[in-house]
Amino acid sequence: MTPDALARAAWSRLTEPGDVVAGALVASLGADEALGWLRDARATLAAGGTVAPEGSGDAGRRLGAAAARWVTRLGSCDPRRDLDHLARLGGILLVPGDPGWPAGLADLGPAAPACLWVRGTAGLGGLTGGGVALIGARACTPYGEHVTGELASGLADAGRTVVSGGAYGIDAVAHRVALASGGRTVAFLAGGVDRPYPAGNARLLAAIADGGGACVSEVPPGSVPSRTRFLQRNRLIAAAACATVVVEAAWRSGALSTAGHAAGLLRPVGAVPGPVTSAASAGCHRLLREGAAVCVTDVGEVLELVDAPGAPAPTAPAGRAHRDADDRPDLGGLDDAARRTFDALPARGATTVDALVRVAGLPLAEVAAALGALELAGLAGHGSGRWRRIRPAPEPGPTRANRTPAGPEAPGSG
Amino acid sequence: MTPDALARAAWSRLTEPGDVVAGALVASLGADEALGWLRDARATLAAGGTVAPEGSGDAGRRLGAAAARWVTRLGSCDPRRDLDHLARLGGILLVPGDPGWPAGLADLGPAAPACLWVRGTAGLGGLTGGGVALIGARACTPYGEHVTGELASGLADAGRTVVSGGAYGIDAVAHRVALASGGRTVAFLAGGVDRPYPAGNARLLAAIADGGGACVSEVPPGSVPSRTRFLQRNRLIAAAACATVVVEAAWRSGALSTAGHAAGLLRPVGAVPGPVTSAASAGCHRLLREGAAVCVTDVGEVLELVDAPGAPAPTAPAGRAHRDADDRPDLGGLDDAARRTFDALPARGATTVDALVRVAGLPLAEVAAALGALELAGLAGHGSGRWRRIRPAPEPGPTRANRTPAGPEAPGSG
Repeated sequence: MTPDALARAAWSRLTEPGDVVAGALVASLGADEALGWLRDARATLAAGGTVAPEGSGDAGRRLGAAAARWVTRLGSCDPRRDLDHLARLGGILLVPGDPGWPAGLADLGPAAPACLWVRGTAGLGGLTGGGVALIGARACTPYGEHVTGELASGLADAGRTVVSGGAYGIDAVAHRVALASGGRTVAFLAGGVDRPYPAGNARLLAAIADGGGACVSEVPPGSVPSRTRFLQRNRLIAAAACATVVVEAAWRSGALSTAGHAAGLLRPVGAVPGPVTSAASAGCHRLLREGAAVCVTDVGEVLELVDAPGAPAPTAPAGRAHRDADDRPDLGGLDDAARRTFDALPARGATTVDALVRVAGLPLAEVAAALGALELAGLAGHGSGRWRRIRPAPEPGPTRANRTPAGPEAPGSG
Repeated sequence: MTPDALARAAWSRLTEPGDVVAGALVASLGADEALGWLRDARATLAAGGTVAPEGSGDAGRRLGAAAARWVTRLGSCDPRRDLDHLARLGGILLVPGDPGWPAGLADLGPAAPACLWVRGTAGLGGLTGGGVALIGARACTPYGEHVTGELASGLADAGRTVVSGGAYGIDAVAHRVALASGGRTVAFLAGGVDRPYPAGNARLLAAIADGGGACVSEVPPGSVPSRTRFLQRNRLIAAAACATVVVEAAWRSGALSTAGHAAGLLRPVGAVPGPVTSAASAGCHRLLREGAAVCVTDVGEVLELVDAPGAPAPTAPAGRAHRDADDRPDLGGLDDAARRTFDALPARGATTVDALVRVAGLPLAEVAAALGALELAGLAGHGSGRWRRIRPAPEPGPTRANRTPAGPEAPGSG
């Protein structure tokens, strides 16, 4: 244990997560020297002095106020005891510069954690670096659970770590399905890693740590998960993963704070749409309305988010290349005259070229050329000087529930 | 009937919808003179001549090719017969400059229709000007029908005309609910107004025309609805309405062409999200992914689209101001120290100020001030020198199905 690591363990006890004054002080003096400064400051304060001398400006006043906060815990701060506790749990402490430290946390600047208390794999950086955060409501719906399962299993198949917050609902499904799919998953906790929270997820959190993943916290063992710690924990999820996807979230939801952190860190953010009748999707729709997230509907689109942060070129995935109730042949490769001529052919029976010229409103030469093209494409045929449509065999492929109620003659709607 | 109106009726018979060469010719010569030019051109063509003399360039060649198309229908073109037919139906012809002409169509430039054949109210411009197009799949789901009904009835209540395409599915629900809500609705048809299409909607289309709305077409009575006419009809919906909302649409859908027209005309476009498991919402999600539409989830958001094309400031509508499973009191008005102090108060029982200083990690002065603020807010109370939380009565309001499974102590997720 280096003095730096020991001092960082102390700082994680003295401060609340996201304390940028502490982060700046540690960055400027080093963790150990900053701790010495704080001990001196305590003596000064105890003697009725001030650590922010007049004329030291706003920064000095902020430092003085922060020191007054930090010293309230200095008496009960014992990093060796915390580290012993962690060692008994089989955990390890990670500090910046360790090979396993998640590189993405550097983007947090002075708000980066002083250290991470980890149960599970020490190579946290490798785990989370290409990972995707799947987050959302604890009070999720069966729809949200279903979509989370699809995404988590797809991410596992793609070799991507699933990062989440260990909560009930979307978080739990994300972790559980990633594990069940043979993938890796990391849970960032708001309380100490010795305090599985919520208690109902204790077995899941143990399985994550034992299954090649990790349970991680920036607060030392024994710390309770408080509201502010939950909100600060969200920034770690956003920073450690390379993209964040909100699967379900109410209009006001902690998941939106994670999405906001991710956007602030220039990480791509995805939101899964859902029924507008579902309150559990209102937060996702809010992100989409505000332009704060990209609409993602399957794991392929989540991976596009990761691989190409720019606007993705949409392609019709397999099973989706259907149209509204339109089982007409694909005229995509034909020119306008051929389409008009095809439209002019009667749905049933045959017609003359003269009639086609009039109905299509095209000169004979164009109609003749169009009929040739349609015949080559297998869409029209003739006999006895009359032309008719040829209906192609239906394309193979998945049929979904959007078959037409309007019959095969119904042209495109809307 | 002016010579201009008569000639425009003829042009709508001679051309296919969206013929920009005809539109440019009519705009440049006037409809009547352009018709005279075409008659001369027919004689020239019949005599083996050419109407695009060498050296007349691309425009001339395009005009010559177009004239060769138009003359194929000149022999069977009889606008007086078409107008008599319309009069027997109780319909009227609208041409640009008429008081009832929809102003938005001017944005189509040379692709604007030569005239409109209307059954129903002659004041079409007033009807459609502030109207909103609700469009989507014929093969819609019960979810799509429900949302369409909500939007159509809300638009009717807001005095907005519902514009659509008279098709089965989303279109039919939009028209029907607008009528049932006492609102006005306009159907743009791809075929002649004497040919209710689809036949199953004949009664609905008649009710639209009789109910203060209108059924409208740019092709004369007797014209069949062809594929190209459906696609061109979509531009009229997009141009006549002041915003377009796609409620449900498959990955490939005519509704997306209407949305594309609307975007091209700088009209706001909305898309209603749905379950990612529903193929009928794939086209809406595609629009959202491409940034081609704004996510809209209720009629309020549709009206925002109309009234403020810029990014709307989101506000939690009534009934939506809930959070993920969080029945903690609202600490929104309190500062960070008060929030931390509240978090430090035990969920049950009471604690000392010294313990609060240590747990919250705040100086005594800040904890004391925070406790004062919490007491004023009715969130904390004290007795015998110990402080406790006071749980406020639950707020009245709609309860939805997203109550917490985690119990009242569960802090914010995600």
